[in-house]
Amino acid sequence: MEKLEQLYEGKAKKVFKTDQPDAFIIEYKDDATAFNGEKKGSIGGKGVINNKMTGVIFTMLEKHGIPTHFVKILSENEQLVQAVTIFPLEVIIRNTAAGSICKRLGLEEGLKLKAPIFEFCYKNDDFGDPMINDYHVIAMELATPEEIEIIREMTFKINDILKAYFLEKGINLIDFKIEFGKNNRGQIVLADEISPDTCRFWDVKTNEKLDKDRFRRNLGNIEEAYEEMLKRVQA
Amino acid sequence: MEKLEQLYEGKAKKVFKTDQPDAFIIEYKDDATAFNGEKKGSIGGKGVINNKMTGVIFTMLEKHGIPTHFVKILSENEQLVQAVTIFPLEVIIRNTAAGSICKRLGLEEGLKLKAPIFEFCYKNDDFGDPMINDYHVIAMELATPEEIEIIREMTFKINDILKAYFLEKGINLIDFKIEFGKNNRGQIVLADEISPDTCRFWDVKTNEKLDKDRFRRNLGNIEEAYEEMLKRVQA
Ligand SMILES: Nc1ncnc2c1ncn2[C@@H]1O[C@H](COP(=O)(O)OP(=O)(O)O)[C@@H](O)[C@H]1O
Ligand SMILES: Nc1ncnc2c1ncn2[C@@H]1O[C@H](COP(=O)(O)OP(=O)(O)O)[C@@H](O)[C@H]1O
Ligand SMILES: [Mg+2]
Ligand SMILES: [Mg+2]
Repeated sequence: MEKLEQLYEGKAKKVFKTDQPDAFIIEYKDDATAFNGEKKGSIGGKGVINNKMTGVIFTMLEKHGIPTHFVKILSENEQLVQAVTIFPLEVIIRNTAAGSICKRLGLEEGLKLKAPIFEFCYKNDDFGDPMINDYHVIAMELATPEEIEIIREMTFKINDILKAYFLEKGINLIDFKIEFGKNNRGQIVLADEISPDTCRFWDVKTNEKLDKDRFRRNLGNIEEAYEEMLKRVQA
Repeated sequence: MEKLEQLYEGKAKKVFKTDQPDAFIIEYKDDATAFNGEKKGSIGGKGVINNKMTGVIFTMLEKHGIPTHFVKILSENEQLVQAVTIFPLEVIIRNTAAGSICKRLGLEEGLKLKAPIFEFCYKNDDFGDPMINDYHVIAMELATPEEIEIIREMTFKINDILKAYFLEKGINLIDFKIEFGKNNRGQIVLADEISPDTCRFWDVKTNEKLDKDRFRRNLGNIEEAYEEMLKRVQA
């Protein structure tokens, strides 16, 4: 497997072509951004941790019947994935109110929601990833009604699996953002990453935040939190 | 029917109790606000026009099988309505992209949408009426899943009726905001108003704006636009 030219560089990862048309290499970076790129920084070791954690979690999800883009870990900070066309959607599940939704709707941080909240955002940095609903997705042709239903069903299933999985590790899964893509065979698969960059993880006993909020809110011990999460996932 | 104490005063109307527990009097004002109250002003004759127009349109909708709160016109700027408990929801339909959605999602003003976009906003001035989806409505207990379905179905039906109605008057119905309430018998009815304050009306031939955007964007001839709309509706 040869690593060929870079296809694009995002805020946290680079994507490279390979000598196989249906495979990409994702290189995870230590770069960290928050608030639509307003806050910039670096988290030592993050690229390695998120590469490994995504590998473990996507493998676990596959075992539970979720199709993902993950193929295999290539190095400390690289993984081989299926080449997919990403839906320009950020798919969010909230089990507990935290972060932006609290300010937007006046909910108390930590409020346990009676049922999970499912949200679509339009993945577009120029517009700050604004929240949209099914009607916008269809009108803007970001996905068809049938694709929306597949994505929604997979997302709720992923939430159920992840909630139980992390609870066993002493972690309360507060919320997360995932992305989906379509592979060369037309199959919709979970893509991108699942890591402390894209989830809120609170320790079940102490409510300590073990995720990117430590960076967003300058809480200190950022690297330690990422390491702690990897340790728990690998345990 | 006696007009008793004022229950509340909103940005465009006052609501009064009457000597009957199931009836309120709504008094329409000339006050105009925009951009969540940031821009304030007055539109001469607006109260009278919106009172009359809402009366005509709600009567027409009732004839088409839509239950509404409207009972009868009482005076130039007052109407008798059913007392309802308003769902704290702004229910929006967009047939053509205009206004806030264009900036938020990068759509061109005037883009005809292939299918209408349906939106819920959380009716709360403190939070600037933020857009939400069904999951937020349910989590925040603003309405039950069953109530959401009734509201959605009524809204699409209202859109079909209004589009055809206004087209006959030479008006392209771009978008509108409506509110629903529950009356003393537990029935969900269309409440509030339908007027140039709450709809975008574009002349079919000239695309001239005949609605509150003339006030929002300082386009001039504001009173004339409201009068023209009333004339067309009464024709
Ligand atoms: N399997 C894949 N095939 C193609 N692109 C992918 C795949 N997985 C993730 N991507 C995309 O890689 C890009 C780089 O990731 P990231 O740095 O997180 O980007 P962003 O700045 O958009 O968050 C993202 O646009 C993401 O959607
Ligand atoms: N039939 C009704 N019963 C009770 N309240 C009503 C009824 N119809 C409308 N309202 C409410 O009257 C209030 C005053 O109207 P308005 O001035 O437009 O308020 P706002 O500033 O919230 O837009 C609004 O909160 C509206 O929801
Ligand atoms: Mg990303
Ligand atoms: Mg109003």
